[in-house]
Parts: sequence; C-alpha cells; structure tokens
Amino acid sequence: MTEKQVILSQRLSSWLIEDGDDRDVVISSRVRLARNIEGQPFPVYAQNAEIIELVAQVFSNGFLQMKMQDLTGLERALLVEKHLISPYLMSKSLHGAVLINEAEDVSIMINEEDHLRIQAMAAGLNLFKVLEGALEIDRKIEREIPLAFDQQLGYLTSCMTNIGTGLRASVMVHLPGLVKTKRIRKMIEAIRSVGFVVRGMYGEGSQPASDIFQISNQLTLGKTEEEIVEDLTQVIEQLIMQERVARTSLKQKFHILLEDRLYRAYGLLKNSRVISASESADAISDLRLGIELGYFEHIPREKMNELVLFSQPAFLRMVAEKDMTELEEKVIRASVIRTILGEE
Amino acid sequence: MTEKQVILSQRLSSWLIEDGDDRDVVISSRVRLARNIEGQPFPVYAQNAEIIELVAQVFSNGFLQMKMQDLTGLERALLVEKHLISPYLMSKSLHGAVLINEAEDVSIMINEEDHLRIQAMAAGLNLFKVLEGALEIDRKIEREIPLAFDQQLGYLTSCMTNIGTGLRASVMVHLPGLVKTKRIRKMIEAIRSVGFVVRGMYGEGSQPASDIFQISNQLTLGKTEEEIVEDLTQVIEQLIMQERVARTSLKQKFHILLEDRLYRAYGLLKNSRVISASESADAISDLRLGIELGYFEHIPREKMNELVLFSQPAFLRMVAEKDMTELEEKVIRASVIRTILGEE
Repeated sequence: MTEKQVILSQRLSSWLIEDGDDRDVVISSRVRLARNIEGQPFPVYAQNAEIIELVAQVFSNGFLQMKMQDLTGLERALLVEKHLISPYLMSKSLHGAVLINEAEDVSIMINEEDHLRIQAMAAGLNLFKVLEGALEIDRKIEREIPLAFDQQLGYLTSCMTNIGTGLRASVMVHLPGLVKTKRIRKMIEAIRSVGFVVRGMYGEGSQPASDIFQISNQLTLGKTEEEIVEDLTQVIEQLIMQERVARTSLKQKFHILLEDRLYRAYGLLKNSRVISASESADAISDLRLGIELGYFEHIPREKMNELVLFSQPAFLRMVAEKDMTELEEKVIRASVIRTILGEE
Repeated sequence: MTEKQVILSQRLSSWLIEDGDDRDVVISSRVRLARNIEGQPFPVYAQNAEIIELVAQVFSNGFLQMKMQDLTGLERALLVEKHLISPYLMSKSLHGAVLINEAEDVSIMINEEDHLRIQAMAAGLNLFKVLEGALEIDRKIEREIPLAFDQQLGYLTSCMTNIGTGLRASVMVHLPGLVKTKRIRKMIEAIRSVGFVVRGMYGEGSQPASDIFQISNQLTLGKTEEEIVEDLTQVIEQLIMQERVARTSLKQKFHILLEDRLYRAYGLLKNSRVISASESADAISDLRLGIELGYFEHIPREKMNELVLFSQPAFLRMVAEKDMTELEEKVIRASVIRTILGEE
C-alpha cells in the first residue's frame, strides 16, 4: 500500500488508540492554528494553488501531501470522518490540500478558510501537549515563510472571529451520565456562559451523536495561547467531575436497570444485521459507558473509537467498495460492527 | 432427591425433549380422557377423597401420587406450568390429586371436573400414539373399577360437552410464520369453522404467547376416538403446510430484515438483565423460528422448550426460593434465560 492508501485505510489515527488522561470521559484533545501568508491575498475567493507548493517545501519529510482535486469524493469524506480535514476543505475549497504526518496526529490544511490551518490531536485531556505540537509546526513554517501578523491584533485571519492567536482548542468528551440524568442542558448553558462553544462530534453544524460533544474556545483575542488552553482545561476538568458524579448516581439509582440497558446495547451491536446510524450511535454510547463502568472487561476501550469511526457513511462505502442504498448501508454497518466486536 | 422432588425440579418432561414428527411446527400432541366411576356422585361439589385411594391402588407401580392438599401453591403452579395438571385441579378441586409416571408423559388427575382425567403427551405430531397411551391407562382402570358408561351416549361426564368419548385431543403448535404474515386470523377462523378449538399455550382461558397455539377437538360425541384423532391430525397437517409456506415467503420477502429480527431476539435473550414475560415470549418465538430456519445451528431445538417452561412465574419462584417483586421476577427470568442459552 502507498502511504496515501494507508491513511485512507481502516486504520485508527494514533490519537484514537493511545492512552491519555481522563480517557473515561475525554476522547481526545485538539488544537488548530489559523495562519495566512504575508503578501498573499487571503479572502478565500482569491486563494491560489501556489501556496500548496510553498508550504509543502517546508514539510518534505514525514508528511504526505494530498490535493483535494486528486481525491475522490469518497476519499475526502473519509478524511473528514477521520477528523484529518474539515468539511469546508472537503467540499468548498478551490485549491485545497492537506499535509498529514505518519501518526495522523498532525495535519496542515492548505487553502481552507485561511491559507493554513495547523491541527494537532492527542488522546484524552492533553491540550498543552497538542498546543505545543501545533506551535512547533507553526514555528517551523514561520522560519521559512513570512506570516500575516499585526503587532496589535496578532495573527490576521479571513474571519474576524479567528484574529489574534488564531487558536481554536477543542476537546471531545463522552457525556452519557449527564445526558441520561438530564443535566446536560444546564451544563451546556453554564459552559456557554463562560465563553466556550459546545458542538457535535464533527464540529460546526454537526449534531451531538453517541453522547459525544466537542467543547472549544470562542475567543481568540485578548488572551495568550496558554491562557486559552488553561481556561478550557479547567472547564473540562469541572465537566469530567460532573460526568463522573452523574455516572455514579446513575449506577446507584438504576443499578440493574442500567446494567440491563448497557447489556442490551451490547447484544444489539453484536447481533443486529441491519442497523441505522442513530440506533448504532446510541448503542455504542451505552456500550462505551458500560466499559467505563467495568461491565465489559473483555472489550478494550479503543474498540469504541473504531465502532464510531468505522460505522460512518464514507467508511462503510469504502468497505463495500461501492455506493449503496440506505438498506445496504445499514447491512454493511451491522456487519462492520459485528466484525469489530468479534462474532461468536 | 425424592421422586416428588424430581418431578418438581427443573427437569423437562420426556415429551418436551424427545424427537417427533413435524417438530419444526408441532411442539407436542396430547390426549385426555374424561372418566367417572360408576356408583359415585360426580358433580364436582359431591366428589370425595376416597376415589383417590381407589385409583391409586390400580397404579401402585411406576406412578407417583400427589394430593393437592399436600402441595404448596408454588408446587401446584409448577405442575400446571409443566402441563401435568390443569389450572382447575390446582385451585378449585376439593379433593384433587394426581398420578404421574416417571417419564412425565402420562398423568391421571383425580377429582378434576370429572373423577378421572387421563392424560398422555408426546413430542411432535403423534396423536395416535398418545391416544393409544391414554386408552391403555383407561383399559387398566376399567379392568378394576366400573366406569359410568351409557350404551347410547358413551362415557358420562360432569360437563355435557365431554359426554361420549370423553376425549380431548390437542396439539401445541408454533405459528410465527402465520402470525407475522398476518394470515393467522383467517387460519383460526377456518379451523374453528370445521369444529376445532384454538387456544393459548395453557389451554382454556389462556392467551396465545410466543406464537404458540393449542388446537383441539370440540366434539366428543358421534365420532369414534380414532375418527376424532384422525380429523384433528388432518387439520394439523394442513396447518403445518400453511405455516411452512408462510415461513418460506417471510424468508424470501424480508430476507435480511427477518434475519436481523431473529438475531436481535437472540442478542436480547442472551444479554438482557431485566425482562418481562411478554418480551421474552416474543423473543423466544423469534429465536425458535430462527433455529427452524437454520440460523442458530449451535442451539438445540429443545432449548426453546426449556426457555418457555423455565421463564414461567412458578419456575422462577422455585429458582429464587422465595416470592418476589415484579422487578425481581424480571431479573431472575433474565438470569435463567441467560443460563439456558449459555453465557459468554
């Protein structure tokens, strides 16, 4: 397989397998930096293909470069499902490209909303590590390419909301306890009131599925990178505590009824032959909770990330090696899920 | 264990384990003969305890005698669930008793609605065999005890509807195909129109559960025993054919959706921790169908009779060795079902 084939294969990126802090609640941490090249026009309609070569020169080693125009729609969708590119880069960019490192925990999008979107990811709650990873890439670029920077405003970006640090730090969390105890709405309100954003698994515009949420900073201006990451980390630590309390109270209050629900979800995933995205998402969330509560000791935690990722539409189409009807998609999804969980 | 303890234990009667004809549709065949002793009053309110000794003398070997008054309510309920006594004998008889042979395929109820109710059972469609078994018991009694018989009317019984042969032949069938294809109502109408009765699994007054039905003759007068059994056999053979056609058409029409439903039922039974009688009955029916359609080759057919029998209320109370709340019953039911199917 070529390197490209590997990235587009059924492989989990390192940040979905590694161990990390607070993995019972936090799936992953991510940081992205928005950057633009000085002297190049950066409203999106004026972007040009030359930028790709400019940036690619800096990362000739250890990074695979893929231009959107060279990829099929399916391959692009796959990269979105792997969180390696954004939906915007997939479908709207005129001269979009991406550079991805071998571990798949760093990706540099080119000609997204900004010339550069540097992204670093890690398992669990580890925002300082991913910030350091992203800044390292940033420094490497800055040594060779002058970036659009204003002494007073900071980094200049296409969209006003990114001006300053150009930093968006985000954390993907699994909150079944808060969802099932119906405390989630209040928690989301509280998080929003202190200036953070709560979204679904695939960021902007996506709905929360499998009780998975993404929490990120709203402000990019007026704080240092470290302050933004520190503040978000504190919010997440609060959330982790609340989620753990909710899980404990669920277990105490519902005991056998909760156990019943979690095992039924397992039985469903292990046996169904036709399953919709939303039904499997609910069951995967229950099974994930079950693993964290100690019910399914034979199932490693990483299997849950496999289940979530590989039951997405583009992955299913890649497995089937064809486009498919709604029913076929459900059949393949059920089959992929059974394979991951190990058939009897 | 004493012989009584064995009968009251978690053992399947022989007719629930043996092989038999048309077992894919027919669970069991049963014949009962109603008889009364000449010279003894037989309206139920005038029955007396002496009859028990009279009959017991004839069957001193190979039969276990149990008087209702010596049994707990739970033990009696257990005998009903094993189809060894009737609900009537369990709760309404003043001087009720039962004689049961070792294989548990012959039982003689004493002081039921009539002095004697002779019952023989076998696996699959085998009415002639059970008729012969019941008549053999009848002849044995008649050699020693004069029975109430009228040259013109035949055997005399408490209830008019049993006069003549005193014979009720019945067959327990599993009809998921006809139920799921919604042809069951028409079939039941057709069967009723030719003089047969369709009931639930536990006879008179019981609702069909797990898609299991009992079909029996209405008339006891004007036909010989052999004619009654022959006619019922013909009706059942028709029904078997119809059920097989329905199953084939289900499989062809719904294919993967049917397979999905059957496997989900299996997953549910194998994993649930809390399950109601009706939910488990539905799932057991689906699993039974799945086995007959060849989906679950590792599960022997007899397991289904175990599941049906051992998930009944009295059996669950025996397992728990105590009375229980509604929730406890569901928990024990789920646990018993998992044990029968073999936990992972």
